[in-house]
Amino acid sequence: MISINELALELFEELAEYPEDFNAVFHQLDNGARIVDCGVQAKGGYAAGKRFTEICMGGLAEVSFRMGQINHVPMPFIDVNTDFPSLACLGAQEAGWRITHEKYFAMGSGPARALSRNPKECYELIEYEDDCDYAVICLESDTLPNEAVMQKIADGCNVDVANVCAVVAPTASVVGSIQVAGRCVETAIYRLEQLHYDPKKVICACGSAPVPPVKSDSTKAMGCTNDATIYFGQINLTIDGADIADYVDKIPSNTSSSYGKPFYDTFKEANFDFFKIDQGLFAPAEVTINEVSEGKVYRCGAVNPEVTLQSFGYL
Amino acid sequence: MISINELALELFEELAEYPEDFNAVFHQLDNGARIVDCGVQAKGGYAAGKRFTEICMGGLAEVSFRMGQINHVPMPFIDVNTDFPSLACLGAQEAGWRITHEKYFAMGSGPARALSRNPKECYELIEYEDDCDYAVICLESDTLPNEAVMQKIADGCNVDVANVCAVVAPTASVVGSIQVAGRCVETAIYRLEQLHYDPKKVICACGSAPVPPVKSDSTKAMGCTNDATIYFGQINLTIDGADIADYVDKIPSNTSSSYGKPFYDTFKEANFDFFKIDQGLFAPAEVTINEVSEGKVYRCGAVNPEVTLQSFGYL
Amino acid sequence: MISINELALELFEELAEYPEDFNAVFHQLDNGARIVDCGVQAKGGYAAGKRFTEICMGGLAEVSFRMGQINHVPMPFIDVNTDFPSLACLGAQEAGWRITHEKYFAMGSGPARALSRNPKECYELIEYEDDCDYAVICLESDTLPNEAVMQKIADGCNVDVANVCAVVAPTASVVGSIQVAGRCVETAIYRLEQLHYDPKKVICACGSAPVPPVKSDSTKAMGCTNDATIYFGQINLTIDGADIADYVDKIPSNTSSSYGKPFYDTFKEANFDFFKIDQGLFAPAEVTINEVSEGKVYRCGAVNPEVTLQSFGYL
Repeated sequence: MISINELALELFEELAEYPEDFNAVFHQLDNGARIVDCGVQAKGGYAAGKRFTEICMGGLAEVSFRMGQINHVPMPFIDVNTDFPSLACLGAQEAGWRITHEKYFAMGSGPARALSRNPKECYELIEYEDDCDYAVICLESDTLPNEAVMQKIADGCNVDVANVCAVVAPTASVVGSIQVAGRCVETAIYRLEQLHYDPKKVICACGSAPVPPVKSDSTKAMGCTNDATIYFGQINLTIDGADIADYVDKIPSNTSSSYGKPFYDTFKEANFDFFKIDQGLFAPAEVTINEVSEGKVYRCGAVNPEVTLQSFGYL
Repeated sequence: MISINELALELFEELAEYPEDFNAVFHQLDNGARIVDCGVQAKGGYAAGKRFTEICMGGLAEVSFRMGQINHVPMPFIDVNTDFPSLACLGAQEAGWRITHEKYFAMGSGPARALSRNPKECYELIEYEDDCDYAVICLESDTLPNEAVMQKIADGCNVDVANVCAVVAPTASVVGSIQVAGRCVETAIYRLEQLHYDPKKVICACGSAPVPPVKSDSTKAMGCTNDATIYFGQINLTIDGADIADYVDKIPSNTSSSYGKPFYDTFKEANFDFFKIDQGLFAPAEVTINEVSEGKVYRCGAVNPEVTLQSFGYL
Repeated sequence: MISINELALELFEELAEYPEDFNAVFHQLDNGARIVDCGVQAKGGYAAGKRFTEICMGGLAEVSFRMGQINHVPMPFIDVNTDFPSLACLGAQEAGWRITHEKYFAMGSGPARALSRNPKECYELIEYEDDCDYAVICLESDTLPNEAVMQKIADGCNVDVANVCAVVAPTASVVGSIQVAGRCVETAIYRLEQLHYDPKKVICACGSAPVPPVKSDSTKAMGCTNDATIYFGQINLTIDGADIADYVDKIPSNTSSSYGKPFYDTFKEANFDFFKIDQGLFAPAEVTINEVSEGKVYRCGAVNPEVTLQSFGYL
């Protein structure tokens, strides 16, 4: 069985050893926990964003950048592919662990979740257990974690705190923009799970999204980075399961009642209350599917260049 | 002189050592022959498809994936480039070795062909001889080879059977779809050879094709995977030979009398008899050429989004 | 502090050790200087072009190729991204060192410039000093340098001549086409410097340009390779500096009085006198900017498919 923490650890070690090559900053806390800052005080960049995303997907994805266009406006795009969609996306990348301690808050994702089994139902569904002495976690947060936070993560993962490795970046940072756009494939797999379709039937998956601009505060950044996938994420899934036919129409973001304007505007209208937003919005704009047992293809959704450009500030 | 079997062996060794990272399955037969199943019982995926293609081109190509679109329909594309077009494509990737033994059948390609010199004229034309104790072969087949088949390959290559390494994938599999689309550049070089243009004059080449969907049986898969290049393969050749001017118009698939509908339909109308199909069909859709001695450029053919989407099942 | 000569040396060593994998030719002169010919007598190709560009940017960039289109005409594109824009582009890639000795002439670029501090103002501006015993230089030239030329470079860099490493390619060669297109991001950073905007405020940058065809002589090749960026370079800059707002409109090539026709034609009309050409022409066609302190975006310029295709010979 593949250990996603072990695979991610290898990727982390290089980052920790040569942080300056990634415009990142390495910290080792007194309790031995290791942290690579990819955007709090550090500037970060493409290399750190790529590495953050690869770690976040448990070392089971290929990530690359290229120039793309939205209605002729040039901007970087991220391409992601994985041959382990349910493990890489749900077992690692899903931002499923809210990490709080006193005033500290971070959305936790990455392979460490598989050790804390957070949430438990996820790991039962994907039938995965990791057994690794090291825990590698990704923190979306505006501040670096202290020793107590890292100890809490260690306790949750049942590993020695000296074996906890964290990469950290705020939503409103270059790495934040990249790693959220890098969740484009995960959004599709997560949506299938929400629709109660068995994600283990997805054999492999690829997707792309524009790398959104960095905004000046975290709420605006959250809007902008979500919009990259909601309004311009394109995903291709290879599935072994003819029953997908019944789910196709429900996948894309444009089936949501909250669809149609930049996420920040929707969020504001909801008085910044997440529970008033239809969860179906957190889905990719457009999905094509190849079902292999019948050799069929499906297509649903559509990209929305106007709302994407509006969200990013180009319109 | 570069040994393509040696270069491919390095790529194979990693696959054989960490098959689970590639969603592949490793087998060592009693006679010592090594096989990596990339799609027979194994699921395979992007990583295995990339590796299969790299091995098939003798380690002399760069292969990558990105999201692309055909008439706005999103799907993965494969990009291939090589600085050794005649050796990588004709000396290795060309599916020039029909491997049969009792009920077993596979289309053989990859660097092992250079040891068996199969076909001989090919190696005389490209003036290449490999001298390597290991033979690395790529098998497009619905079943895994047994000891006798591997022994036959060993005999053909004049190496010890324990030194024969095979990667295997059916046409109707994820790796099958990828590795056939990965032949987009090869198709152009092969076409030049068929037109009696000296392929050694091609300095370097790049190309792309959509990764076609996996179909439910091998005949349909053969149609669909061929169409990826015939109707949407785009190739750029850098050539040192002003005489290419006389050949340009004959290269692309749309010069063929069999051009115009999905390959499966054409094949069916020909009662599944290959010899009734015009061989000029096996060519890329569109080619641009840079002839360096005169500093000229040429363009021929055109992509055909409609037939491609029809073949893939989107229309 | 990162040593760009040390990073580039690693990339050079592999090229020097396995030149045949890159279609390159290795030479060691009697005085110990090492040279890898990537296009003078050697053919070169994509691998050598990528490596040349990576070395030229001091090992601080990611470089890749993919198929792209200009008004539907397929051709290779190069994608470049860097997290060290001022150091990689101005401190290394800028062709800032004219190397002459008797009849020898080359445009020198790459990390060796940081040792010779050529030009000095550049290194004061970007606040960079390299301290490395090895000097790695990129030479755009039709001929290979001899011992005296290499000694001159060694003297300029204040290193032992046996520690000087050069990669060489003519403008009119495959590697020449690639490495000049690979300067697309550099052109944007250089333009900002010319406009007296502090290039250190650029956090990271990415860009793409078509890989232009190889022309039959160096003057025509110079035109064609410049046009790749002037008429079709697309760049995205991430900047921390709200004052960029005042500079945006002046960045792109279409603000230049010399803009509008293939560079070769403009150059010819100027009787091949560089000083009659407006320096503002040496800029990318289109730039988008994300200013992070205010979370704003900017867009300027536009690609010009017609002039690009005309320059390349497709129109």
